[in-house]
Amino acid sequence: MQEIYLDNSATTRVFPEVAEHMAKLMTVDYGNPSSMHHLGVVAEGHVREASKILAGILSCNDKNIYFTSGGTESDNMAIIGAAHALERRGRNLITTKVEHPAVLNTMKHLEDEGFTVTYLGTDRSGRISLDELSDALTPDTILVSIMHTNNEIGSVQPVAEAGGIIKEKCPDCYFHVDAVQGFGKAQINPGRMKIDLMSASSHKIHGPKGCGFLYVADGVRIVPVNYGGGQQKGIRSGTENVPGIAGMAMAAKMLYSDYDADVRKLYDLKTKFIERITQIDGVSVNGLVSEDPAKICETAPHIISVSVKDVRAEVLLHSLEGQGIYVSAGSACSTHKRAPSATLSSIGLDKSLLESTIRISMSAFTTQEEMEAAASALEDVIPGLRRFTRR
Amino acid sequence: MQEIYLDNSATTRVFPEVAEHMAKLMTVDYGNPSSMHHLGVVAEGHVREASKILAGILSCNDKNIYFTSGGTESDNMAIIGAAHALERRGRNLITTKVEHPAVLNTMKHLEDEGFTVTYLGTDRSGRISLDELSDALTPDTILVSIMHTNNEIGSVQPVAEAGGIIKEKCPDCYFHVDAVQGFGKAQINPGRMKIDLMSASSHKIHGPKGCGFLYVADGVRIVPVNYGGGQQKGIRSGTENVPGIAGMAMAAKMLYSDYDADVRKLYDLKTKFIERITQIDGVSVNGLVSEDPAKICETAPHIISVSVKDVRAEVLLHSLEGQGIYVSAGSACSTHKRAPSATLSSIGLDKSLLESTIRISMSAFTTQEEMEAAASALEDVIPGLRRFTRR
Repeated sequence: MQEIYLDNSATTRVFPEVAEHMAKLMTVDYGNPSSMHHLGVVAEGHVREASKILAGILSCNDKNIYFTSGGTESDNMAIIGAAHALERRGRNLITTKVEHPAVLNTMKHLEDEGFTVTYLGTDRSGRISLDELSDALTPDTILVSIMHTNNEIGSVQPVAEAGGIIKEKCPDCYFHVDAVQGFGKAQINPGRMKIDLMSASSHKIHGPKGCGFLYVADGVRIVPVNYGGGQQKGIRSGTENVPGIAGMAMAAKMLYSDYDADVRKLYDLKTKFIERITQIDGVSVNGLVSEDPAKICETAPHIISVSVKDVRAEVLLHSLEGQGIYVSAGSACSTHKRAPSATLSSIGLDKSLLESTIRISMSAFTTQEEMEAAASALEDVIPGLRRFTRR
Repeated sequence: MQEIYLDNSATTRVFPEVAEHMAKLMTVDYGNPSSMHHLGVVAEGHVREASKILAGILSCNDKNIYFTSGGTESDNMAIIGAAHALERRGRNLITTKVEHPAVLNTMKHLEDEGFTVTYLGTDRSGRISLDELSDALTPDTILVSIMHTNNEIGSVQPVAEAGGIIKEKCPDCYFHVDAVQGFGKAQINPGRMKIDLMSASSHKIHGPKGCGFLYVADGVRIVPVNYGGGQQKGIRSGTENVPGIAGMAMAAKMLYSDYDADVRKLYDLKTKFIERITQIDGVSVNGLVSEDPAKICETAPHIISVSVKDVRAEVLLHSLEGQGIYVSAGSACSTHKRAPSATLSSIGLDKSLLESTIRISMSAFTTQEEMEAAASALEDVIPGLRRFTRR
């Protein structure tokens, strides 16, 4: 049976070229970047080369890139680090109701520490209101954290506009963007978007797990959240994960080299898939589904959130799995505990659909044949599952 | 020119079998352990298998193993996590003057938070005094952190005896052991040694960089230091680095399968090397150098700290590098900043030798031919370098 992997927002297959390059860095160029001898210098060179690749993609300086163990650590470093750096200036933080748990739970921790957090709502498409953001900004606000692309329904936030509003109303307030689902799928220029801190993850872009980075704009100061040997200018101690860092940068380079064609392909696959599955009785798609090309950037090219009336998500997931098709019930970024999704609640999804929603997420590897097979499978299994549920 | 890598306490070459296994987990079994479908279940299986391998080596339960991004994160999680979990019970912490910066700088951070820290001194061999430890324990002491094996001179602390004293005098006090240099080189049974928390790193044992683990004994409670999806029972959020975790466990299994023979070989190489180089004028070896077999476990099999009168460590390092031999000046675990070594100061090394000390660290790959070549190189270059210095 052919396997069709449509859970790329949970994690992606590493590019074989990346895995091969990493093996070389593990067994040949295996030095510690802090070592003074040749092998150390070579390892340090790989780290610097990776910074330059990522800086090139983001149109920033390689000094703005700090390497972490993944998106969660990047979010923690940015949010806790900024809150502690600016706590004498103010105690209010702003975020949205549809953030990833790595942001939401870090915010909750800071509430326990005495910070106040304002949570912005969203419209039915999952996007925040810029007016609500503007109204929420106060002289006490020190940090705004808004995700680039939602991990459950794929809505893309108006990050550039938000950056403009924040810097106009509160010039000293930091702006953090969780771009874990956006990096690799969207062109992001943190400088132009007035982003101060931006989190990204390697394993969402066909790089290895256990690696990510945090962009830190010039002049932005965060307090370190870990302590040790003082690597990475004291901001993130610990021996650099050289193979992971180099693998992540290589994957990013590969993704962005075919960027335009890949993204066009994904939008095309998404549009056709949605057209077809929304013909099925009881099936609806969440988030913005726009055929207006000017609005296409308001929704991610790779994520499709599908609600199926009267069918439990887990049942549908395992039924598709029986046909070799892997999707997600909600998002896989949390543990197996199935709490009601904050995102689906925030967009006002009917309560009866909260546990009846799956996420289909594509990658650069996804083909039209695969998406047609997935649509056919949904057409096949849903009627039977709905009868089953009704009994 | 043959390369002779003798900087294994900085980092090690990954076993080729490990790199190959990891490539499979990156490109074939690449699922997210939190995903509910088959690929997720397979990935979760790899993580559980790794826990079981490590638990087997430590004679503990696989539930006691938490995966991290490396030794620094493990130390931070253990020390900050324990201090915050127990802060209502007391505010005193005890550690030693010869810890790695990942412990020392974390302790300094906790001093800034209002904890008091007692720093135990050492004798000339780098070992603490158990009487001094016993005297330092107070009803206010909530955590003791003592490293297993010193990263600069290889002294092995009396961890089991320390555990006994701590639990007798302060039964509720937690005992943390930084075993980053000890794990893989020593038989460590945390249960028997009364260790509550133990840090280890993958890249010191021929596993990949960017991975480590923290042993947490049954009933020991630490407050998480990061926030997110609630993976690993909420203690360490973030998608598990499956290839790194599996690679680390495989490396540990390989190392411990040949444990007795490897360690005997290393002690033998170390003894012969020391015998030979201490014949060179102005050369001395730091730490315990015992020919008494009963005392051999007081010093690590793989680390040799060598002071060379009137020769700067960097000059010697680069001179050896010219012959393809890689060693370290001090320890490579910190950044290039060359601060005087706390360990070398603590053992009372003559000030004139502080900047004249190199570290030679072997691995399971190290051969007798390599160590003989290294000794010959030292015999060759030192007289010339000393003349050079005197001019």
